[in-house]
Formats: sequence, C-alpha cells, structure tokens
Amino acid sequence: MESISELVERFQFEKVLNSNPQSKSIVLLGKIDDKHAIITAEKTHFSVNSSTNEYSNDYEKLKQTTKNDIYYWGTALLKQDLESNPSAKINVIWPATDIHIKKYSQQTMHLVRETPDVYNRIVKPYIDEMYEQRRLKWVHNILYENAEADRVVYKDLIEENKEGGFVVLPDMKWDGINIDSLYLVAIVYRDDIKSIRDLNPSHKNWLITLNNKIKTFVPACYNFALRPDELNIFVHYQPSYYHFHIHIVNIRHPGLGLGMSAGKAVLLDDIIENLNYLGPQGFMNKTLSYIIGTNHDLWARGLKDEVARQLQAEDIPRSRSST
Amino acid sequence: MESISELVERFQFEKVLNSNPQSKSIVLLGKIDDKHAIITAEKTHFSVNSSTNEYSNDYEKLKQTTKNDIYYWGTALLKQDLESNPSAKINVIWPATDIHIKKYSQQTMHLVRETPDVYNRIVKPYIDEMYEQRRLKWVHNILYENAEADRVVYKDLIEENKEGGFVVLPDMKWDGINIDSLYLVAIVYRDDIKSIRDLNPSHKNWLITLNNKIKTFVPACYNFALRPDELNIFVHYQPSYYHFHIHIVNIRHPGLGLGMSAGKAVLLDDIIENLNYLGPQGFMNKTLSYIIGTNHDLWARGLKDEVARQLQAEDIPRSRSST
Repeated sequence: MESISELVERFQFEKVLNSNPQSKSIVLLGKIDDKHAIITAEKTHFSVNSSTNEYSNDYEKLKQTTKNDIYYWGTALLKQDLESNPSAKINVIWPATDIHIKKYSQQTMHLVRETPDVYNRIVKPYIDEMYEQRRLKWVHNILYENAEADRVVYKDLIEENKEGGFVVLPDMKWDGINIDSLYLVAIVYRDDIKSIRDLNPSHKNWLITLNNKIKTFVPACYNFALRPDELNIFVHYQPSYYHFHIHIVNIRHPGLGLGMSAGKAVLLDDIIENLNYLGPQGFMNKTLSYIIGTNHDLWARGLKDEVARQLQAEDIPRSRSST
Repeated sequence: MESISELVERFQFEKVLNSNPQSKSIVLLGKIDDKHAIITAEKTHFSVNSSTNEYSNDYEKLKQTTKNDIYYWGTALLKQDLESNPSAKINVIWPATDIHIKKYSQQTMHLVRETPDVYNRIVKPYIDEMYEQRRLKWVHNILYENAEADRVVYKDLIEENKEGGFVVLPDMKWDGINIDSLYLVAIVYRDDIKSIRDLNPSHKNWLITLNNKIKTFVPACYNFALRPDELNIFVHYQPSYYHFHIHIVNIRHPGLGLGMSAGKAVLLDDIIENLNYLGPQGFMNKTLSYIIGTNHDLWARGLKDEVARQLQAEDIPRSRSST
C-alpha cells in the first residue's frame, strides 16, 4: 500500500491547476508512474486555543521590511512541528480522472443577465431535464425516508399542512462543531418551487413564516450561542439543485467565497421585499443577474452565446476571443 | 530606533483581538514597555511564479492522516527561508491607541432591515451630518483639484455634460499589478446622489450609460486582459462615504470578505433592474436589508434598537442579552 510520502516523492509536477492567495491554497497537477495525480496543499491557520483564546505560535526569525512612525512591517519564519503544529494540510488524489482534473481546475467566471426570455429558452429546459433525471432522490430520502435522520437539526411538519413544512440539516461544508462557521440548509416539503424564478406574491406569507421560524428555532437549537439577527439567510441562483432550499449561515462566517456573493446569494429578506413590487408573475418577470462559471452546464447550453449577444446589442467590445 | 525583532521579543501577549481561519491571519493585543502593541500576522501564500506558472515550494516532511481508495490526506512541514520564502508577514503597531485597538478588534455583525421610516429617522440625519463635516474633501480633490492624477485610470468628463462625468481610480485594496485582484472605483461628478437610496427611475439611463462605459473602457485600459462580462460592478450599502461611487472588481478576485457579499454589495445591473419596478420614488420606498458591524456609528445611533423592535414585532426571541 502506497503512503502519501512515497506518492509525493514520486510526483512529477506538470502545472498549477488553481492557486488561491486568499485561502493560501494551491492545486497541482502532475504524474505519478505515468498516471495523473492532483496534490492540494493549504497553509494551516495559526494555532489559537478557542476555549482560552491563547495563542501559542512562535516566531523563529524576524526580518524588518520597513518602518513608518508607529507602523512596522516584516517577514518571519515560524516554528513548525509535524505532530503539534504542521504548516500545511496535504491532499493527494491518485490516480486522478479527467473529471477530477476538471473539478479542481480554475474556471473563468462570467456575469450573466438572465432575462425572462433567456430563462424560458435556456434555463427552464435544463431545470426540467435535471428534474426528470430524478437527481433529487437524495432530497426525497431526507424528507420522506428518514435518511440522515440523526443529522436533522429541526423538522417542522404537520400532516395537515405539508405545504408549510421544512427540515433543517447541517450543510456538508460545516464541521458541525464551530458555531462561527455554522452552516445549515432548510429544505422545504413543497416541491412546486424549483428556484426563485417560481416565486410570486402568493408565496409571500409562506416565506415570511419560514423566515421567522428559522430565526426563532435555529438560535434555540444552538443554545442561543447566536442571535436571530446574526443569521445570514439566503438562497442561491443558480442553485446546485432545483428543489427550493434556504442557506442559513452565521453572519460571522469567515469566508464562503462566491457562496455569499451578490450575484450568487439573494437574501431571503430581499426576496420577500421584491415580491412587493414584481407584480403577479413575481420573479418570472425579472431579469436576474448572476455570476456563473464556464464549467456549469448552462454556460455551454446557451448562456455563453447570450452574453456575447447582449454585449453586441449594447455595442460593448468583447475584448478578446471567447473561450 | 526600535527594530521589529526587538519589539516582538519584548511583546507581552494579552489576548487575541481577531483570528481568521480563512485568510490564516491573526491579530494579537499585548504590551511593550507598558504601552499597547498590536501584532498582525498572516501566513504567506505558496510561491507560484505567475509568469511561468511554476511552483517552487517543497515539503520537508510529510505525515499521512488517512487514506480512502484514491484519496490521501496528510500534514506537512514546509521548507522556509527568511529571504526568499518566509512563512508569515508580520505587522506591528506600537504604541497603539484605543482607536487602533477598536479598528483591529473583531466586531459582531447584524442583519438590519432598513425601512423607509428607519432611513428617514436614523440614517438620513447621519448622512447629512457626515456631509456637513466636509469629510468628502478628498473626493473633491480627486474630481476637481487633480489630486492623485497619476493614479487616474480613466476620466470621462465633457464640460457640457458634467452630470454624466466620472473618474476611475485603483482602490487602495488593490496592489495595482495583479489583474486577478483588479479593484477600481468609479467616482461620479454629480453630487446629488449620496447612496442608492437617492436613486429613482429618472437615473436609469444615466446608470445604464455608466455601466456600459465601464464595461467598454476598463478592459481597454488593461490591454483586454479581462472581458466586460468578467467585471463585477457593484455599489455598497451602507457605503464607506456618501458620494455615489461604483466598485469595479475582477470577477475572479479570490476574496473580498464582506465587500462582495449579498447584504453589502448590490450589483449595478440589479439596481438598474429594480428601477423598473420600484415606482417614481425609486429606492426611497424600498426596505433595504444589509449586514452591519457593531462598530459602525449607525448601530449605536438607532439600528440596534430598531433590530430589537423588529424582532419583538415578529415575536422572535432575541436569544441572549444584547451587546
């Protein structure tokens, strides 16, 4: 059996697949014994003891870069220890398939304006297809088959009012422990809402009730370690699956990347507010602007051409050959 | 004259002011010779040569944590060198004032729903006060006194149409070099728009023109290294100063924290779209939901009480004593 040290030793570097200076992480593509391997490395955080708020890391050497008045800048070497204080987390995938390589590669992102027409021509057929392929079996299992029952944080379901029911579970991105990065998902029982596009003023009271219930019960489920106005409650468009679900995140969450961005996340409060103005068709009439990666199926299925068409219509040069 | 090494050696740790596991940075408060000192440390990124896309960091030691099928996890010690490959950037402020300490301390964040009434009672008087204190002298200097003229990326000003004019400069958060983290600000010449609250349908065509000009000229100014649909064009509410300005950021920007978040950033495309629905009073009629820190003046000036009042009105328990 191979060990990670042997694999890394035999790794022949080919190229950097992705590099994130914010999270200090890097993804490398290379080969081990003629088969593709992906190495992901991420610097570790400084070791802070969260219960005592003590900091134990130490500088081994320091070098001053510059000084101005009361401000000093420098660089340092840090003490490191493989057992108690490693400097990086390493992950190796070997042998890696083309799907792995695509998943870990940096994709270019684009801003798309989805008009009602674009929705009907490009997005709706895609959603219908996803739905027919029964990709939502796992959602059904959670709602009706008691799957992940031990993970359920809160379930709101009365037989007489299945329409209003929902279930709250920890998101996979959360470690389930650190309240600072609390991340839950509320999945609703009704299955007629595939995305915010399907919301109209008839859903307003339902959404207000949902919002208030989340603000009431989530703090209670976590022993009031956070207040209702410290919850970030939002929906994604495009979502990763087309059954209406709501993200519930600690407002102090140190970083979600695109997940919390304008152009991806829409606050539930804003959705409710928008239903006051959008008319009886609700979001079906709105132009929705969002950020989408070129690896998303919808990009090749028409959004790429649509962006090009819109820029041309507005006489904005596209700058360079499209990719 | 003190050197950073001497200061750090004499530093007596008191507490962790802030700690961000996402950016791997930590802020420590302590004392040097009985005066407060703040030490900020941030881990460095892996060294990738951006021109050759080569990666030069090396593992000194590796330890396997676990293995499952083709997936291997482990921890590592990294080679480090004070000159060419330091492991952290260090910043010392000494002596630090209470204002420094407040600035670098973690603040709790809250979600606020600003109704038109809350705007008129709490926010508008604050904006008027900020304006009277002439805090915008530096904006005036940029627009009319040629301040920072060497930094101006693009200026669009015709004497006959001052209303439509704007100037584009690099934001202080950008290093001015790495296009991946490109961050510009467009400041408009007209001074009757303090924030998005002042926008109504009469501004729609002006905003569309601004949006299209930004998408046309910014890629051109950077040698078409990015496309118009790779620009993230947005406005902050609350903004950090009350003269209408627009943020222009590379959509690939690896991380802006709250700066790009729903609940802080509003896409210019969405603003324009909203003006189709909001009626003749525009944003003055809307309830705006946003995230605000307790260090913001507006929190103590009334938003804190307003949040409490709203939760009570909706019968949502506040969970724990307010801070």
